[in-house]
Amino acid sequence: SSTFELDSSPHRRLNILTGEWVLVSPHRSKRPWQGQTEVMHDEDRPEYDPKCYLCPGNVRADGELNPPYERGFVFRNDFSALLEDTPVFASNENDLLVANNQRGICKVISFSAKHNLTLPELSVEEITDIVALWQQEFKSLAELEWIKYIQIFENKGSIMGCSNPHPHGQIWSQSDVPMEILKETERQKNYYAIHRESLLSAYLKLELAKKERIVYQNNHFVVLVPFWATWPYETMIISKRHISNISLFTEGEKSSLADALKVLTTRYDNLFECSFPYSAGMHQAPVNGGEYDEWHWHMHFYPPLLRSATVKKFMVGYELLANAQRDITPEFAANRLREISDLHYKMKLN
Amino acid sequence: SSTFELDSSPHRRLNILTGEWVLVSPHRSKRPWQGQTEVMHDEDRPEYDPKCYLCPGNVRADGELNPPYERGFVFRNDFSALLEDTPVFASNENDLLVANNQRGICKVISFSAKHNLTLPELSVEEITDIVALWQQEFKSLAELEWIKYIQIFENKGSIMGCSNPHPHGQIWSQSDVPMEILKETERQKNYYAIHRESLLSAYLKLELAKKERIVYQNNHFVVLVPFWATWPYETMIISKRHISNISLFTEGEKSSLADALKVLTTRYDNLFECSFPYSAGMHQAPVNGGEYDEWHWHMHFYPPLLRSATVKKFMVGYELLANAQRDITPEFAANRLREISDLHYKMKLN
Ligand SMILES: O=P(O)(O)O[C@H]1O[C@H](CO)[C@@H](O)[C@H](O)[C@H]1O
Ligand SMILES: O=P(O)(O)O[C@H]1O[C@H](CO)[C@@H](O)[C@H](O)[C@H]1O
Repeated sequence: SSTFELDSSPHRRLNILTGEWVLVSPHRSKRPWQGQTEVMHDEDRPEYDPKCYLCPGNVRADGELNPPYERGFVFRNDFSALLEDTPVFASNENDLLVANNQRGICKVISFSAKHNLTLPELSVEEITDIVALWQQEFKSLAELEWIKYIQIFENKGSIMGCSNPHPHGQIWSQSDVPMEILKETERQKNYYAIHRESLLSAYLKLELAKKERIVYQNNHFVVLVPFWATWPYETMIISKRHISNISLFTEGEKSSLADALKVLTTRYDNLFECSFPYSAGMHQAPVNGGEYDEWHWHMHFYPPLLRSATVKKFMVGYELLANAQRDITPEFAANRLREISDLHYKMKLN
Repeated sequence: SSTFELDSSPHRRLNILTGEWVLVSPHRSKRPWQGQTEVMHDEDRPEYDPKCYLCPGNVRADGELNPPYERGFVFRNDFSALLEDTPVFASNENDLLVANNQRGICKVISFSAKHNLTLPELSVEEITDIVALWQQEFKSLAELEWIKYIQIFENKGSIMGCSNPHPHGQIWSQSDVPMEILKETERQKNYYAIHRESLLSAYLKLELAKKERIVYQNNHFVVLVPFWATWPYETMIISKRHISNISLFTEGEKSSLADALKVLTTRYDNLFECSFPYSAGMHQAPVNGGEYDEWHWHMHFYPPLLRSATVKKFMVGYELLANAQRDITPEFAANRLREISDLHYKMKLN
């Protein structure tokens, strides 16, 4: 080919939130796949599983009983990666061996009393309750002055390391600001200092004008495939208003986010007609560390599937050692996600 | 616990090569695992597979015939992620949509004529031939002035996206310097400017004195678990001499690297008595871009297994969105790898 085309020529794109590049190799999606395929799990689960530590009324690893809850329910993770009472420690030998202690609180949030549902199968009202619970948890963790960042996330599907199919997410809060947030803070701060507008406000304006990567929008949120997406069907949900964290969401924004989540996760499930795996989470301003005016709330979805319900993208040798890499273009992914029905495929079967 | 202990209290460690932190949660390795397990693949493969595109004499996807080679063999990847003739292109809309073309050459390197062997099952002499082939390929790619970086790597095992069990690696070379190399260049340059000694020379000295994370050493190379290792049994091979790239390896260094590779991959296989999966690759100075005196050659091994041949570490929600995280300590991993036999478990069975 003698002219460069974004949809077919190999190129790099800049992730403006982290400052890192991603390599795009669109022509490569034609390569045949003879490697590992994933096992599709039987989705016929009961509404209540007596052995599930998330179901209402059941006993957890620490011996406590879950209450007979009806919608969302939050508790401290029995196998927390971070502990509240870690003693203070810091060491530095010649700038070569550098370490410090880390305190934190890890929580689990059940999305539904029903063992056999997933986010897209809940009603917008039920998802709004989850958003309200996230907001409430964020606010109460932010009241602890030693907590500097709160990471709200979900691992969905066993392929994403999720060990219990009961619909749930996690909240890890900690005493230092994690790496990805440091990167995004720096980039947003620099942009805001120059333009007096948040980086994502400017980016949203451009994307809404171009319409090439928009998947969905409602009154308060836009769902899009970012120009620099790394995972095949990676998306972002961005608030239309420049808000730094979920504690500032209005009632209207809470139900709009629920609507955006329902539409996006339904389309994901419909893409390959399977319970679509992903890791997703909110990025928002650190807490107890100043103003963070530059910060613009958003949520990332990182789904691993590439070609079908059983063939994923492997982020391995070149990707781990050198540079993030993708095959299909973000525009191709956005097109597919834009055109898919909002009616969940399981509903169609009835 | 009232005193801080590196081997049991949650903490962070700094990766001095990238400037990024890793969260260590040693107490968490006690958590029971009920999630996804990996399938062990039947390892009874024939020495020659008529359908394998890497076996001698067979036909490849582009119609070419492999020669009747006996040891290593290199050819251009039929499904290259990078192409040599991509037209030049660069665009930047308001610093928000930033992209440029990427040219490159991707090669495949077969490690053996025999379909059923892996690196640890080759002799040191056979592996030395592979090292010599890497050196030769590096030199000839570096002669092309538009190539700025050469990434030599191997994805081993289907869990690492390897789609053909025939022992082989890859070489991706390209017109810009990839992200991980940019990060390591900056950190090494800063250290070298201040200390007039390479960052890894200073680090090696400290580790050789402490002996806590050393796995193996010979005349020219040290194998260790870095203080900031992210993957459970991550290791690095570091050259004792401050050399910036493989083209400068002496005959002695080539066979010493082969010896280190044989010992390390044998111990990996012995750890869980399985063909141990990993992505591994060399990091070395960029080419055709100046002197890079600060650069110190090394090789990273990123293996996914955590508890057994079938339970891996999932780098998912928190890890992708917030911060790299590990459970077992680097010192625990180093201890296990140090104490394991150098006799391959398959040999013991005979
Ligand atoms: O080139 P291969 O072996 O077909 O592909 C494998 O290695 C590549 C480089 O790490 C990755 O981009 C692919 O996802 C992986 O499946
Ligand atoms: O906490 P879980 O669900 O047991 O564990 C899962 O999510 C964590 C946070 O992303 C990861 O560290 C684990 O590797 C993964 O298996």
